[in-house]
Amino acid sequence: MNDRIWTAAVIVIGDEILSGRIQDKNVAQIATWLNVQGIRLREVRVVPDVQDAIVEAVNILRARNDYLFTTGGIGPTHDDITVDAIAAALGVGVEIHPEARAILERYYVTRGGLTDARLRMARVPAGADLIENRMSGAPGIRHGNIFIMAGVPHITAGMLDSLTGTLEGGMPVLSATIGCWVAESEIADLLGATERAHEGVQIGSYPFFREGRTGANFVVRSTDQAVLDACITDLSAALAEGGWTPVPGGI
Amino acid sequence: MNDRIWTAAVIVIGDEILSGRIQDKNVAQIATWLNVQGIRLREVRVVPDVQDAIVEAVNILRARNDYLFTTGGIGPTHDDITVDAIAAALGVGVEIHPEARAILERYYVTRGGLTDARLRMARVPAGADLIENRMSGAPGIRHGNIFIMAGVPHITAGMLDSLTGTLEGGMPVLSATIGCWVAESEIADLLGATERAHEGVQIGSYPFFREGRTGANFVVRSTDQAVLDACITDLSAALAEGGWTPVPGGI
Repeated sequence: MNDRIWTAAVIVIGDEILSGRIQDKNVAQIATWLNVQGIRLREVRVVPDVQDAIVEAVNILRARNDYLFTTGGIGPTHDDITVDAIAAALGVGVEIHPEARAILERYYVTRGGLTDARLRMARVPAGADLIENRMSGAPGIRHGNIFIMAGVPHITAGMLDSLTGTLEGGMPVLSATIGCWVAESEIADLLGATERAHEGVQIGSYPFFREGRTGANFVVRSTDQAVLDACITDLSAALAEGGWTPVPGGI
Repeated sequence: MNDRIWTAAVIVIGDEILSGRIQDKNVAQIATWLNVQGIRLREVRVVPDVQDAIVEAVNILRARNDYLFTTGGIGPTHDDITVDAIAAALGVGVEIHPEARAILERYYVTRGGLTDARLRMARVPAGADLIENRMSGAPGIRHGNIFIMAGVPHITAGMLDSLTGTLEGGMPVLSATIGCWVAESEIADLLGATERAHEGVQIGSYPFFREGRTGANFVVRSTDQAVLDACITDLSAALAEGGWTPVPGGI
């Protein structure tokens, strides 16, 4: 059995997130996908379209995580500088990947041909492999433990799909949720005590306010199904004993 | 006139974002609010509910930005460690803020009273001031250039509202958008040339695929309205000249 914890980081590259123009959707889908691979998303950074900022984040995060994913900045326009920045971080040159060129030639044969701008999307940090893009033309890029993905979420979804099962991971983190119409402040001690009583379990408490009422969802996480089940059973019993009604699966 | 660029960073604290369970909504609203204050969001980090990770991010980001905002981890439960982590980063103790205690006493007088768990929400890094919470009980916290906000987006929205106009900033970044039913790869050169021809302007290109067609929105940013207008006029003319129809305001 493989008990070590495998970790990943994500770098979201793009002024459009930092300006507030677009709300990121890639982090949640990459996080969810990583869980299934038995890899924990440990940290995320959003950086501007500025080479130094990308280089700094890439070099710190690739060194202290098993895997590093980037999203954004791999299109054909002047603001797409991800490949150059990652090559600079790695200390390698940038080259046209012959297979990427062939893919783009095929893709654009009915779309006006492969122009210089479009050929930019065949550029990779020297020594890289490609990640299949099932949605459109330009492929993603893998270099060592770095995975360079698109900014457009459905394209990244397709790239993740093609990577499924290819990355070594550990035990998937399992989770179960109990919802309750209770102010979390009323049961804070109960939650802490329940977490301490079940080794290797984390309980997250996520309050909400709906229809004029206060409630919270409690998410229990563990890599061991039996431990998870025992914790959920105890937490449900403790809530019921306190006079609240636990809602399995959350509210 | 104040030409210097004021910057901010955001740290999103929370396992719920890294697990993919919740999609962050605070970054976009803080970014949009900062723009209006004349402050640019320069970087974002998402860190787990782990003290060392919070301390590292706080100390790096508060030193190199004018302002640092954190979201999440200020509730009453065992997984809310933001105040302790920031106090550790600052090298100060944690104390009960008397005004925060009074606010909580008033808030909970009709809600079962101020328990020990609820009193946790009056804890602040020593020397901090409060940020008004117009939505619920527990206030936000300001310590120097650090602003400690809630995780729940509508509560943070209220806190931002109460901070409006109180932070020194520079010239707001203005932006205007042109949409076009064109593959961005067809006009990559045109975009780059237009950006270079207008000093101090950034043009972002954001492609999309809708209703079976390829399009893109081009967002032009500048702190100078006249420069922005001139760039938009030129870009629209160049698109029209190429046979495409620019859509003011975006698609």
